[in-house]
Amino acid sequence: MSATPPGEIHEYRRTERNRVKRLPARASHERDTVHAILDAALVCHLGFVVNRQPFVIPTLHARVGDEVYVHGSSKSRTLEALAGGVEVCLTVTLIDGLVLARSAFHHSVNYRSVTAFGRARLLAGDDEKLAALRAFTERLYPGRWDEVRPPNPAELKATLVLALPLDEAVAKVRTGPPIDDAEDMALPVWAGVVPLALAGGAPIADAQLAPGLALRDTTFPRDRDWTPRR
Amino acid sequence: MSATPPGEIHEYRRTERNRVKRLPARASHERDTVHAILDAALVCHLGFVVNRQPFVIPTLHARVGDEVYVHGSSKSRTLEALAGGVEVCLTVTLIDGLVLARSAFHHSVNYRSVTAFGRARLLAGDDEKLAALRAFTERLYPGRWDEVRPPNPAELKATLVLALPLDEAVAKVRTGPPIDDAEDMALPVWAGVVPLALAGGAPIADAQLAPGLALRDTTFPRDRDWTPRR
Repeated sequence: MSATPPGEIHEYRRTERNRVKRLPARASHERDTVHAILDAALVCHLGFVVNRQPFVIPTLHARVGDEVYVHGSSKSRTLEALAGGVEVCLTVTLIDGLVLARSAFHHSVNYRSVTAFGRARLLAGDDEKLAALRAFTERLYPGRWDEVRPPNPAELKATLVLALPLDEAVAKVRTGPPIDDAEDMALPVWAGVVPLALAGGAPIADAQLAPGLALRDTTFPRDRDWTPRR
Repeated sequence: MSATPPGEIHEYRRTERNRVKRLPARASHERDTVHAILDAALVCHLGFVVNRQPFVIPTLHARVGDEVYVHGSSKSRTLEALAGGVEVCLTVTLIDGLVLARSAFHHSVNYRSVTAFGRARLLAGDDEKLAALRAFTERLYPGRWDEVRPPNPAELKATLVLALPLDEAVAKVRTGPPIDDAEDMALPVWAGVVPLALAGGAPIADAQLAPGLALRDTTFPRDRDWTPRR
């Protein structure tokens, strides 16, 4: 089942940049797969080059359609560089489990990652910026945008939003148990997977919270079943 | 209390690359802080440039002393580039919580990140490589190295290990509650922090596991107290 409407693209185009050479069986250029991973990750890592020096900066992101938004202060060096139209590599990574094999060599992690290449555009109009900021807030906590004070003109002006087109993107995913060598299978070593997820803890109310306010229920992780270890 | 022995460095040197311009109060060049964050993170993101194109690749890492090891197949494009001595930016990011403010503008996340700049060296000797592989295995699951089959000569040969020196490194950390504007404090909106942590789930034994084997106890997250939401 695909969420892509008829007539739209199902896969991102393959280029030299987003070709996966190592373990290509783990790669997918499928649009729905790329979107699901981007949506499940809270932060991305933005790579860009200034004076031949690579920088990798973590930041919140929000995907809407075939664009990924990032935002920050109008004083940010990162956003300044990106707004200048440099090449960007955006990567998100979700760690889904420790893969514990019978041999040291076959230890691994289960993960889902996406890498996207391109140049970002600066959102200019206030309406477009507001829609992007709504997406950021809703991603942190669904339903939140309609509960909080919206950005005022000064806050909107102090915030830059950039959009990276999803065009040359690729997902890479490892799932499942360890793959041990046949001759190691009888070793007296526990083997299997310890699931990992970014999980939510008990909320800590602000010390100055007005009385009678509670946090609506939310669930972490939001994107998959996960049973905490007892 | 510092873990740094007398006479050793306490802070990494400050350069143009690892200077934090945005919110410098959140930055630390302290060696112990940088080490603790690197050790708490399972994966890093490696940034490097090939033909002017930035790449950001997620990979496992292990810190030993003032070096961070990364490893992979001898066929890996990433390791090939790094072994060539290109400039690397290594970043790790831990997400510690959603910061839910009364205004959309002051929403944030609590996080701990480290960024390190430099050029990697290829580990040449088998003893040095084995010590690094031990560090990787022990990081995934403490005590595991002495339980599993160690790498054989063919596996050792198929694995490249690179060491990035910790020299120009910097940590950036946000902790604590939302910082709302004074005029928003009385708004009828829940505000506070939802703690997040990469938490361990119920282990899934390999289908072909020999009978009578159990996974020793382990705890996630390993680096801080965290109460799962009930």
